[in-house]
Amino acid sequence: MGLFTKDIKTMNDLFVHQLQDIYYAERQLVKALPKMADKATDAQLKQGFMTHLDETKVHVQRLEQVFEMHGAAVKAVDCPAIDGIIEEADEVAGEVDDKLVLDAALINAAQAVEHYEITRYGTLVSWAKLLGRADCASVLAKTLAEEKNADSKLTKLAESRVNLQAAE
Amino acid sequence: MGLFTKDIKTMNDLFVHQLQDIYYAERQLVKALPKMADKATDAQLKQGFMTHLDETKVHVQRLEQVFEMHGAAVKAVDCPAIDGIIEEADEVAGEVDDKLVLDAALINAAQAVEHYEITRYGTLVSWAKLLGRADCASVLAKTLAEEKNADSKLTKLAESRVNLQAAE
Repeated sequence: MGLFTKDIKTMNDLFVHQLQDIYYAERQLVKALPKMADKATDAQLKQGFMTHLDETKVHVQRLEQVFEMHGAAVKAVDCPAIDGIIEEADEVAGEVDDKLVLDAALINAAQAVEHYEITRYGTLVSWAKLLGRADCASVLAKTLAEEKNADSKLTKLAESRVNLQAAE
Repeated sequence: MGLFTKDIKTMNDLFVHQLQDIYYAERQLVKALPKMADKATDAQLKQGFMTHLDETKVHVQRLEQVFEMHGAAVKAVDCPAIDGIIEEADEVAGEVDDKLVLDAALINAAQAVEHYEITRYGTLVSWAKLLGRADCASVLAKTLAEEKNADSKLTKLAESRVNLQAAE
């Protein structure tokens, strides 16, 4: 959808626009996660990023499935929010001069990504139900649950070990 | 802190950097919230944005208090994440051609902001405790609770009325 064209006239248009936005975001994350894994030192954190990369690839496929179920073209629109979150993660990581502190910074960055996705998928599930698309809501809710789980795992890893090591 | 200078050497440096980042974000929100209130049609949503503006001004003051308690200079660093989230909110709002659908889009945008702040304050509280600054953690936790409350209020308003009106 173009800027200044007022293409969003209904809740259905807004729902499809938000699908296109998160589709862009998920595909950016498929590119960003291997770089985050490369930068991580803690083995469990590194593995966690790679596991989440596999999940993220499934999230991309699920979005393609939802576009299809909903009869909308599979399409991405720029998502300045995820670009900003990833840019900030890169900037901060580039400023950290200690590999254990870098792990703590990477977890912080990854949690900003997870929270962005949690809010967007939360809204998408709600809007899908509103539009009578319980089938789409059900697919989107699977991803929402995985994003929440990824966030919880990051919190546990940070508080049980990574932050403590970084502060030593 | 400058790019490419590797100024973050300790968890304390990372904590102060994150304070500077959220300080920038809160001050951007003080500018953005009145614009969101202007665009809103639903009276409760409009009022909600103005109430959260008052809270956000207190959040700025609390951050200044934490800088002082921690013996760090009050300073902001650019936060591409919040800039991206606000830019995306502006773009989407500019594309919506129905005032009730716009309200639903504004709530979605505001919830992305709240989730960004929830993740950052959650981390700051955790890091402050780790650094032995229970006093700073306590001040930051007050703001965290208010951000979570703001997010819950937006969900309730969306699901009880705004989304339903927008879908009619």
